[in-house]
Amino acid sequence: MLIQDLMTPTAVVDKSIMQHNIDAMQARMNQLGVNFRPHVKTSKCIEVVRAQVAAGAKGITVSTLKEAEEFFSAGFNDILYAVGMVQPKLKQALALIQRGCDLKILTDSVASASAISEFGRENGVTFQVLIEVDTDDHRSGIKPESDQLLDVAHAIKSPGASLAGVMTHAGASYDLDETSALIAMAEQERSRCVVAAMRLRQAGFPCPIVSVGSTPTGMSALSLEGVTEFRAGVYVFFDLVMHNIGVCQMDDIALSVLTTVIGHQEEKGWAIVDAGWMATSRDRGTQKQKVDFGYGQVCDLKGKPIDGYHVTSANQEHGIISRVGQIDRSIAKTFPVGTMLRILPNHACATGAQFSSFHAISPDGNTAKWSRFNGW
Amino acid sequence: MLIQDLMTPTAVVDKSIMQHNIDAMQARMNQLGVNFRPHVKTSKCIEVVRAQVAAGAKGITVSTLKEAEEFFSAGFNDILYAVGMVQPKLKQALALIQRGCDLKILTDSVASASAISEFGRENGVTFQVLIEVDTDDHRSGIKPESDQLLDVAHAIKSPGASLAGVMTHAGASYDLDETSALIAMAEQERSRCVVAAMRLRQAGFPCPIVSVGSTPTGMSALSLEGVTEFRAGVYVFFDLVMHNIGVCQMDDIALSVLTTVIGHQEEKGWAIVDAGWMATSRDRGTQKQKVDFGYGQVCDLKGKPIDGYHVTSANQEHGIISRVGQIDRSIAKTFPVGTMLRILPNHACATGAQFSSFHAISPDGNTAKWSRFNGW
Repeated sequence: MLIQDLMTPTAVVDKSIMQHNIDAMQARMNQLGVNFRPHVKTSKCIEVVRAQVAAGAKGITVSTLKEAEEFFSAGFNDILYAVGMVQPKLKQALALIQRGCDLKILTDSVASASAISEFGRENGVTFQVLIEVDTDDHRSGIKPESDQLLDVAHAIKSPGASLAGVMTHAGASYDLDETSALIAMAEQERSRCVVAAMRLRQAGFPCPIVSVGSTPTGMSALSLEGVTEFRAGVYVFFDLVMHNIGVCQMDDIALSVLTTVIGHQEEKGWAIVDAGWMATSRDRGTQKQKVDFGYGQVCDLKGKPIDGYHVTSANQEHGIISRVGQIDRSIAKTFPVGTMLRILPNHACATGAQFSSFHAISPDGNTAKWSRFNGW
Repeated sequence: MLIQDLMTPTAVVDKSIMQHNIDAMQARMNQLGVNFRPHVKTSKCIEVVRAQVAAGAKGITVSTLKEAEEFFSAGFNDILYAVGMVQPKLKQALALIQRGCDLKILTDSVASASAISEFGRENGVTFQVLIEVDTDDHRSGIKPESDQLLDVAHAIKSPGASLAGVMTHAGASYDLDETSALIAMAEQERSRCVVAAMRLRQAGFPCPIVSVGSTPTGMSALSLEGVTEFRAGVYVFFDLVMHNIGVCQMDDIALSVLTTVIGHQEEKGWAIVDAGWMATSRDRGTQKQKVDFGYGQVCDLKGKPIDGYHVTSANQEHGIISRVGQIDRSIAKTFPVGTMLRILPNHACATGAQFSSFHAISPDGNTAKWSRFNGW
């Protein structure tokens, strides 16, 4: 099927752009001398992750145990669940380990570490546990210098659990847009996570894994000394948020929403399309950035951005396209009813999640349907 | 299964609150003397819509042809597809009509009306077409006084199409929060749609259906004279946006996201939960309203709001709960790891869409799983 024959709205992935993104990040990580463990929450799509592994990725990162289950069933064995483990989810993690999954889980509290150790002991497994380290004041994790770091390490008790390492995610990198600040944040993420690993080792704990990462820091790091693996997710598709941060060009964005013009309000310069927020997602990640793209950048059917036209407003199944700055009173001629357009997303993870599949476009114009999943 | 045994994050619906909302809106419409055609885009759930029809609803409104297909397959026959029809979707609409569906479709342009008429004639069916009227400058539709109204009516040509009526949606009512303004908007929606119907009738067109509606105007209308049917969707669950508009109380909100505390940052007063934006949706509908609830209002496991605690920030699978105005430095004692909480949503349509099912809670505390669907 060709792109112009697809029913709209739908999500399309440009395969060659995606492959370029995969190869570029893998090359960076190879050069920096670390394993690369992509975060599959962005795509939740087997075909995408197979391409990441084919390029050299070692293991995957997941944001839900459902992702772990789906990817394990598809043959991916080495999985890091990168959200703090909590007691009621241990049964699901246990079942994966009992099926043979090389699952690693996360904690940042004595309460959770103790619950994991106890549950492992009772059930005759040893959970591999990483301690989450807070390197950027952004979200979860323990400060590398805190006493709590050693308290949690002590609470990860054999035989139910063993300390597999430390991990951090510098989510604060999403708030930056200057190269020097990005380089500094990458160095902060690296160095502070390494400090945590060294403190644990000095206290007699083995700490084989030192796992760091985010897409902005991955594109900016000059050194990853002391780090064993890097994680990043959104780089595989990139998006307008990453474009504003400065770690990709507009033509590196592999994901878009295909849509059809269904009407106009000519005097206002509006073209109304069938991609509302149900298709684009409600993500307004560019709202506070240097360019606010509304609900997305408008492109032609081939994916070429049409300068100045954004999805400026969205209802559930209606998107409103207009020209920023100056009303296009001939919008009904610019984009007649039936015109097919593509919308670049603010945030690829959020937009992808609005769909149950991607249509992957090959350079010859043919499309293939790639399933993806959602939920927990 | 009891609510405390559910895996988080998940979406729960309080059945008695939902039933109260259904009964109250139906009673209003009965009193105002119009048919009520609920918009099923809010729930996309057969059990919910069965309850709406059991209470007296006549027909349903859908936002996608997928909804039309799913509900027609489940036995709902009288369906209005309330998004402007465009050529490539006519095949899907035709298939529904050929299966016996009493489907009504929408247009607001000569181009689309002609395409519909032509396609109907070629395929031996008569599409029932409503003209979309713009009564509030909000989105799609034709101004009731415009020449275009009659042009489009003329373009709806027998035998491929017949003019079934006019419809409007006063989406601008979402920007209001005062009773008098809401009453005025309801009257504007009514009167301007009736003007369109009268102009068409004066020009010799039959115009049997006069369909108006939105939840805020439905809760505010004093008269619906000249209107034949009313449509509303979100009232079935209500949400924080509707609460801010002033058309529901906090305890009228039937939908919430069940979540578990997975960690803390005590010095910042943060409790971190496993409901990130993948569960709440990215909808920030209360951002510009009188109370900004962040990503939602925190409630205890029974659904009672905990004053001042909001989901103030969200990443994909992490929500951050904090007390608004004053840091709660004992948040780890307020909400220990493992605590289950419920989050009231900004926008029920968007939050519901993040899930493939609802857990409906009965007054006895038991839950039943109700499937819902997404996509196009």
